[in-house]
Amino acid sequence: MSRTAELVSTGRELLSGRVLNTHAQMLARYLAGVGVELVRDTTVSDDVAAIAEAFKGALSRTPLVFVTGGLGPTPDDVTRDAVARALGTTVVCDPDALAFVKQRYAQRRRTFNPASARQALVVQGAAVLPNPVGIAPGERLQVDDRVVFVLPGPPAEFRAVMAEHVLPWLATWLPSTAARPERVFLLCGLGESDVVTRMQEAGFPPAGLDVAFCARPGQLELRLLPSPGAPDAPALLESAAGRLRALLGNAIYAEEAVSLEEMIGRLLTERGLSVAVAESCSGGLLGHRITAVPGSSAYFLGGVIAYADAVKIQRLNVSAEALRREGAVSRAVAQQMAEGVRKALAADIGLGVTGIAGPTGATDAKPVGLVFVALADDEGVLVHENRFSGDRDEVKYRATQAALDMLRRRLIERAGPAAAGGE
Amino acid sequence: MSRTAELVSTGRELLSGRVLNTHAQMLARYLAGVGVELVRDTTVSDDVAAIAEAFKGALSRTPLVFVTGGLGPTPDDVTRDAVARALGTTVVCDPDALAFVKQRYAQRRRTFNPASARQALVVQGAAVLPNPVGIAPGERLQVDDRVVFVLPGPPAEFRAVMAEHVLPWLATWLPSTAARPERVFLLCGLGESDVVTRMQEAGFPPAGLDVAFCARPGQLELRLLPSPGAPDAPALLESAAGRLRALLGNAIYAEEAVSLEEMIGRLLTERGLSVAVAESCSGGLLGHRITAVPGSSAYFLGGVIAYADAVKIQRLNVSAEALRREGAVSRAVAQQMAEGVRKALAADIGLGVTGIAGPTGATDAKPVGLVFVALADDEGVLVHENRFSGDRDEVKYRATQAALDMLRRRLIERAGPAAAGGE
Repeated sequence: MSRTAELVSTGRELLSGRVLNTHAQMLARYLAGVGVELVRDTTVSDDVAAIAEAFKGALSRTPLVFVTGGLGPTPDDVTRDAVARALGTTVVCDPDALAFVKQRYAQRRRTFNPASARQALVVQGAAVLPNPVGIAPGERLQVDDRVVFVLPGPPAEFRAVMAEHVLPWLATWLPSTAARPERVFLLCGLGESDVVTRMQEAGFPPAGLDVAFCARPGQLELRLLPSPGAPDAPALLESAAGRLRALLGNAIYAEEAVSLEEMIGRLLTERGLSVAVAESCSGGLLGHRITAVPGSSAYFLGGVIAYADAVKIQRLNVSAEALRREGAVSRAVAQQMAEGVRKALAADIGLGVTGIAGPTGATDAKPVGLVFVALADDEGVLVHENRFSGDRDEVKYRATQAALDMLRRRLIERAGPAAAGGE
Repeated sequence: MSRTAELVSTGRELLSGRVLNTHAQMLARYLAGVGVELVRDTTVSDDVAAIAEAFKGALSRTPLVFVTGGLGPTPDDVTRDAVARALGTTVVCDPDALAFVKQRYAQRRRTFNPASARQALVVQGAAVLPNPVGIAPGERLQVDDRVVFVLPGPPAEFRAVMAEHVLPWLATWLPSTAARPERVFLLCGLGESDVVTRMQEAGFPPAGLDVAFCARPGQLELRLLPSPGAPDAPALLESAAGRLRALLGNAIYAEEAVSLEEMIGRLLTERGLSVAVAESCSGGLLGHRITAVPGSSAYFLGGVIAYADAVKIQRLNVSAEALRREGAVSRAVAQQMAEGVRKALAADIGLGVTGIAGPTGATDAKPVGLVFVALADDEGVLVHENRFSGDRDEVKYRATQAALDMLRRRLIERAGPAAAGGE
């Protein structure tokens, strides 16, 4: 049996543009951990016929089908009914689920009414999966040799039922087999075209291997994997990985699925250094990203969001003269922000970010996307000038990506010479 | 012909958990603007057979089909081939597209090679839609009375081709008809169960109307719409909207699609007030959200990210005594942070956020999710204690949502008495 799965996401809100559908991404990550590949996500509205049709299609193609959303108490929560209809069966009230729903309502001091009882309905024959953080339970159904999971839509409930009931069950149900070998490389500070050019010049990849790219703002993911039909060749992958490291050097920030902010956390922790941030155009996003890592309080002291010029002067000791002469978006101000926050917060390293996020504020000399990023440490201060494309959100994000990458490279440098073949 | 559309999103990265698929959300928003409803998104891998099958299914159901991704130069970019196969035709090299691709490579100082030329291939008979910000063009195909758009996958390119080529074309192709009337209400600071209870007690909604809910962390969207089969009744909607306002009062922050941070921008601008933030557990996210609004520099001065206690003491004048006695996560410290940043940055209003985002740092008395939010202005200081559920990301987000909502309510209060029937 193939180790593939499909997802059917339900909910009008997912197709109206109001809510971003994160189920496919969450599910794919969970499934990758048990060696199952998600091969399709079909998102449909809260419509019995559409859900039933999409569900039947998925069940005809894969041995493992997930259906999410539409398990609540309101009349547009019709997923149970759709799955039952597709399987030619019906929904029944599960007494344990009913007791559980009543208990949840009592805990939350909410009035239990006939509508609430809908959440105790399950497809006939389903195993009920109690919801650790919400009300409506999930369900597991066996359909011949196939398995169906019906899971709540709210992301926190989806994750909780996955972790508590689905993954442990899958781990025993699935025969354990070795995953197909591949290597992942996460890159920062080098464009896709530069990477492709370096590879072309070096005649990379060698026969028998393919390279898959995925570009995101300020980041590039590169996967090295055996060509279709080619035998899995660990030795070939190993030697190609070595060549790639020589080719791309420090632009490779990780060879595993880890965020740039996590990698920086590891480097700062290893070196026992602290960091503080001074943010103008990024508005706090740099601090937010650094503090997305659990335990970041060990190396992140804090920062100053210096949006107004007066804050730059009074809180970061930026000179009024520099602001007047060069403007807030300038090399001089970025440098003084990094130095200022390093000193004000008594950090080992200070980062400064100032730029034009747009859509307004640009001049001929200073277009939207112009961002200066500076790093100050005990040896001095570095400033990089960047010109980013994209809208306000993207410019802010790329600015923080540039600042984090500058910090990463500096931390690697401080530890000694760059890796062999580095840039 | 029904005003519906389907999307086929392609790309292994969308199903591997590495990249979040934002196409459905973007497309739905664009289509809503021209009165078209997105009814299904099917996400498949870079596989000719899977794309062709999903595309054929979509074309059999709706008059308008969008296919995104897989138009680049690499061997796994196979969308053109799949669409051509499904339509029983072939791909051809378009000379204008080829000239355009070559010009783009020259502009970017990249070497044009045979692989690059793949980006000039289009399905036979397609109208070519030049890519304003990238390389590979989009395509428009007429298939009997149906229309297919094949669009690049990178979000910025997708948006640019949509705006430049797709929407103007749709506006002329589609007969203009009035959209189905509905009312949207965005709520903050009131849970779904409380809203449902108030409605039940009031016998709301009246016959002929339905209410659709969509809950997100710290926010609830409620739509009032005519029941299926019920005649569109503007007067009924109007009077129900009035009842809902009386029932929910200030918990309604908007009756249009607008973010809480945008609404706060409007209120601050109207009242001519400035704000500054002091962030501990939110780590900069509050500043980031406020500065996501273009033009926010008119009312946002900046803030202090006070992650370390020393920063709270030295930069925000929090008392060492309060930190020792009450701990950093306490009512007293939140209050002093709000007052401290208001004074340090000379703002009209100061916001303070301190809490335990988890997964570590909790004690028996102070669980993960405990967050104090404070607001200081010229009349004094308010502190709210919150207990949020969710993981680190969600606690941080909910903390900023609570701070923004506290600011919103205070700004409404300052302007005079709350709306009739308000809480």
